[in-house]
Amino acid sequence: MAKLRVHNIAISLDGYIAGPNQGPENPLGEGGLRLHDWVWATRYAHQMDGADTGETGVDNDFLVAGDAGIGATIMGRNMFGPIRGPWADHEWQGWWGDNPPYHHDTFVMTHHTRPSLPMTGGTTFHFVNETPEEVLRQAFKAADGQDARLAGGSSAIRQFLRAGLVDEMHLAVVPILLGAGERLYDDLGTLPGYQISSVVHSPAVTHVTFTKTA
Amino acid sequence: MAKLRVHNIAISLDGYIAGPNQGPENPLGEGGLRLHDWVWATRYAHQMDGADTGETGVDNDFLVAGDAGIGATIMGRNMFGPIRGPWADHEWQGWWGDNPPYHHDTFVMTHHTRPSLPMTGGTTFHFVNETPEEVLRQAFKAADGQDARLAGGSSAIRQFLRAGLVDEMHLAVVPILLGAGERLYDDLGTLPGYQISSVVHSPAVTHVTFTKTA
Repeated sequence: MAKLRVHNIAISLDGYIAGPNQGPENPLGEGGLRLHDWVWATRYAHQMDGADTGETGVDNDFLVAGDAGIGATIMGRNMFGPIRGPWADHEWQGWWGDNPPYHHDTFVMTHHTRPSLPMTGGTTFHFVNETPEEVLRQAFKAADGQDARLAGGSSAIRQFLRAGLVDEMHLAVVPILLGAGERLYDDLGTLPGYQISSVVHSPAVTHVTFTKTA
Repeated sequence: MAKLRVHNIAISLDGYIAGPNQGPENPLGEGGLRLHDWVWATRYAHQMDGADTGETGVDNDFLVAGDAGIGATIMGRNMFGPIRGPWADHEWQGWWGDNPPYHHDTFVMTHHTRPSLPMTGGTTFHFVNETPEEVLRQAFKAADGQDARLAGGSSAIRQFLRAGLVDEMHLAVVPILLGAGERLYDDLGTLPGYQISSVVHSPAVTHVTFTKTA
């Protein structure tokens, strides 16, 4: 059975996965880049820049595992870009340049659809105004037997969690305070239907994995 | 210089230091007792029951350190008991029985004062309707050169943090979700004037220590 998986969501000690005032200059909000300091040190991150350097170890293992067996990606519109409301034009093509790091069909949930956008390297962005269930159906179809990954952001993850559609979720708890921003644990309660299945520490972060029980 | 210290505050992954609906049957709110599972296993906890058993190690070390060099304690009224508003009588003597685990002057911050309450074993509860600064002055005086400890709860800790009066704060992050309750990180922002000075993992929890920088 194909799964919907969430991986490597960096969350501050006070529960934020992005800082306040996200915008073109601040994709992760004020202070939010610090959430990813643990990533930059890894071999995984260095290899994305074409270098064979960087640290191996627990953090690198989690980053690598996040890509394994994934055939499609889902993200919220606020993760795709800083534009809110209707598209004035179709010039915005995401944060990731010509060759986004997905390399497969990537579904952007939005109330404002636009034509599918094929990029270099195999990524095609599809803009879908559908329920989480329907988006997931399309993603599983595109993944063709592989798993689908829910990339973020906060609002999209909460929607899928509340619908019980996420099979596995991995967070990296970063020991910093952001003070404000996008909270993951809003209106989720104790996350019924999920249990914390593993807690693994690296020197930089605490990796917590949730698994669906129901 | 004597310090004001906060120790061994157990906080859930979603940021709560007590569950919802605290009351006589549920001093830590619904689900809140699970915040202290890591404590019960330790030698520190067993010794409070008069036994020489229990685990040593990181968790035990933090619990022991929390009592070292402390000459007075401060707590909020909601930590002292479940009664809100004026006292109908003075029968409530705290959660801890005849011999509370403080063994020194313990200042309960409340808008509703009552006569000081001497207990067995050296604890005397004083009920004070004063600013954090003045309560701290009285606690330092009672501690007679030793440090003062701010025991909780959430609201009292936030008041002293916002006033910049806490010198050190140690939290134990417990990998559970409470879903609702008393949040520590409310209206604290990034806690200006403090830095995270250490992060230490045990198999059960992550110990995070904040130190005043200013």
